[in-house]
Amino acid sequence: MANFDLTRKLALDEGGKILLLVMDGLGGLPRTVDGLTELETAHTPNMDKLAREGSTGLSIPVARGVAPGSGPAHLALFGYDPIVYDIGRGVLEAIGIGLEVGAGDVAVRGNFCTVDANGIITDRRAGRISTEEGEKRVELLKTIQIPGVECQVKAGEGYRFALVLRGAGLSDAVEDTDPQATGLAPLPARASAPEGEKTAALLNQWLAAAKEVLRGQEPANMCTLRGVATDPNLPKYSEVYKLNAACVAVYPMYKGVSRLVGMNIIETDAHDTIEDEFNKVAEVWNQHDFVFCHVKYTDSRGEDGNFDAKVQIIEEVDRQLPKLLALNPDVIIITGDHSTPAAYKAHSWHPVPTILWARTAMPGRVQGFGERDCVNGTLGQFPAVDLMQLALGHASRFQKFGA
Amino acid sequence: MANFDLTRKLALDEGGKILLLVMDGLGGLPRTVDGLTELETAHTPNMDKLAREGSTGLSIPVARGVAPGSGPAHLALFGYDPIVYDIGRGVLEAIGIGLEVGAGDVAVRGNFCTVDANGIITDRRAGRISTEEGEKRVELLKTIQIPGVECQVKAGEGYRFALVLRGAGLSDAVEDTDPQATGLAPLPARASAPEGEKTAALLNQWLAAAKEVLRGQEPANMCTLRGVATDPNLPKYSEVYKLNAACVAVYPMYKGVSRLVGMNIIETDAHDTIEDEFNKVAEVWNQHDFVFCHVKYTDSRGEDGNFDAKVQIIEEVDRQLPKLLALNPDVIIITGDHSTPAAYKAHSWHPVPTILWARTAMPGRVQGFGERDCVNGTLGQFPAVDLMQLALGHASRFQKFGA
Repeated sequence: MANFDLTRKLALDEGGKILLLVMDGLGGLPRTVDGLTELETAHTPNMDKLAREGSTGLSIPVARGVAPGSGPAHLALFGYDPIVYDIGRGVLEAIGIGLEVGAGDVAVRGNFCTVDANGIITDRRAGRISTEEGEKRVELLKTIQIPGVECQVKAGEGYRFALVLRGAGLSDAVEDTDPQATGLAPLPARASAPEGEKTAALLNQWLAAAKEVLRGQEPANMCTLRGVATDPNLPKYSEVYKLNAACVAVYPMYKGVSRLVGMNIIETDAHDTIEDEFNKVAEVWNQHDFVFCHVKYTDSRGEDGNFDAKVQIIEEVDRQLPKLLALNPDVIIITGDHSTPAAYKAHSWHPVPTILWARTAMPGRVQGFGERDCVNGTLGQFPAVDLMQLALGHASRFQKFGA
Repeated sequence: MANFDLTRKLALDEGGKILLLVMDGLGGLPRTVDGLTELETAHTPNMDKLAREGSTGLSIPVARGVAPGSGPAHLALFGYDPIVYDIGRGVLEAIGIGLEVGAGDVAVRGNFCTVDANGIITDRRAGRISTEEGEKRVELLKTIQIPGVECQVKAGEGYRFALVLRGAGLSDAVEDTDPQATGLAPLPARASAPEGEKTAALLNQWLAAAKEVLRGQEPANMCTLRGVATDPNLPKYSEVYKLNAACVAVYPMYKGVSRLVGMNIIETDAHDTIEDEFNKVAEVWNQHDFVFCHVKYTDSRGEDGNFDAKVQIIEEVDRQLPKLLALNPDVIIITGDHSTPAAYKAHSWHPVPTILWARTAMPGRVQGFGERDCVNGTLGQFPAVDLMQLALGHASRFQKFGA
């Protein structure tokens, strides 16, 4: 389990600085049974050197055989057992786009959709409208006022938005209104337990008003709500690890999880390149003990099933890596949150190749950075949730346990 | 956690005999990034043969990234989860030098110190007086009588001693009196919770009397008290494993932990060599099912940062090893309680190279006994707290689990 009692007891106020570089969906599979994986194929001289000088191993995101979503997979990397700490999707979406979700608030994911004259959904994603078009509709949604509750709305990417309700007696015990198919009308919000009835009624009032303000706004002339959730109130990095941490990520989800654990979210642009992100890490490095940097496109290309494109993303990360190495981190971790093999076109359960470089790391008999090299690494196979403890140990940020 | 419910259920009254040889702080780090560790450097033909014929692996003392003290690290080797079983330092010190600590007793570590005419500490270790000089002062402390409580004092090494209070209503909720700096007076004993007030008052009476009897005994003319603790009442080897166990160790700490788990403590001399210790193992071998033998100096040389001297200690153990092999143990475990790399000069978190030799052990593809060979061993990386279960299994001392 996530043993914060132990980290709280051992963590020191001072010590080395830690860089956590996550290539989303890094782990892969060979293209043919006797072939190489994406990471093994990629030409990565900088990472290979770190792998030879540092420790390597394979990280198990949640449990053997279990393919995780991005939220729980990152929670695990951050040291929070995702089986213990369950964060609702609505909260992740909301905080990822910069809406605050406080104690007692309810957060919901919204999708714009297209409905016909009879209110039947003809497109669940409103023709995948642009973010700009989404933002225009969100301005209309912002005019909605419901007595007894404060409503905050903010546009996400494309057809997505988030809604936060703030008021007394709210609950996350409410079902999704998305019927998950076209040819059906959006469902009303229904309580999944008695304590959700007030929230369901408020959401239905809000949906009725949304229907009015979106009338004539085709293709985004209605919306559905999903992932009703409340603030999980996670312990924070500063409290459990004594780390002043920053997050450099482009996608809302990763900023969202990082915000939940108390990292400072560094401003990024949706079009930032890997080079841009690494430059931002460099900009904020001096002010933090720990910087998490997230690269999304390894996962995206894996999901596309595009082996070669995923290789190219990994190679681009390696080309840009000297920017990060120039910061002289005391501990450098390079890993993924889960595997997304191009051969599988989806998140998978395969353990994730991991480098932990530090002057105090035990090097293994490995030639470079790849899944099969990591099998022989000195970290062995380990639960992702233990990674932060390893990082703190190697950064001399733990006192000795007992005498 | 330490699954004694399982061991109690499975342990048989009879079976093979087990030798546990612990080289304290055995694990190391390469001298240079592409070099060898202390153990890999050492010429150890006897251990190499055991490593090839038996199983090897890497043991994780407490948790990944966590460097343990000697007490918790040995508890783990003995199968007691040190996060669950927390032993106070006062108890370890007291039982290590042969004071009995029973239920309800309070044990405290004492340090002689030097105070000036104003009672200000000028040397926290009393000029590191000899054990003989310490023993003389302890004779004075033995004269102290406090109404309502029995006081036992015994000299430890050099400037150290232990004090045990026996009486009703005692508690470990008392702070240290050592101010941890010179230029300050010793602190009074203060309760850290209401239940500690009686004990704090008794200790203050004792300290006032100590000040009187030590007057004029420079450089050891006062003392401080630390690590106030009560008996942890651990389950015993005979009960959880059905083993009649013995301990051959030179240092008090290791005898202390062994006594806590119910081992017979074999008498040793502070000047015993490795050869002397192995001879004592041989003397008591026939009367026991399990013998634990502790070699201290691998850790000491690691803490000194003396790579070559640590190598020499390991080589001396290997040279003497045939004495133990001649006993024909059914199971031989050779490991450390934690790593103390000369390059790190302190206890570290690195997993500890381990041999488990038995006729029923699965050999791996290893060349000899070393950290990087053990990565490829058939035990993999495992929690130290599981080692006793492995020992009992290989000694045919477990019945089958279920039908």
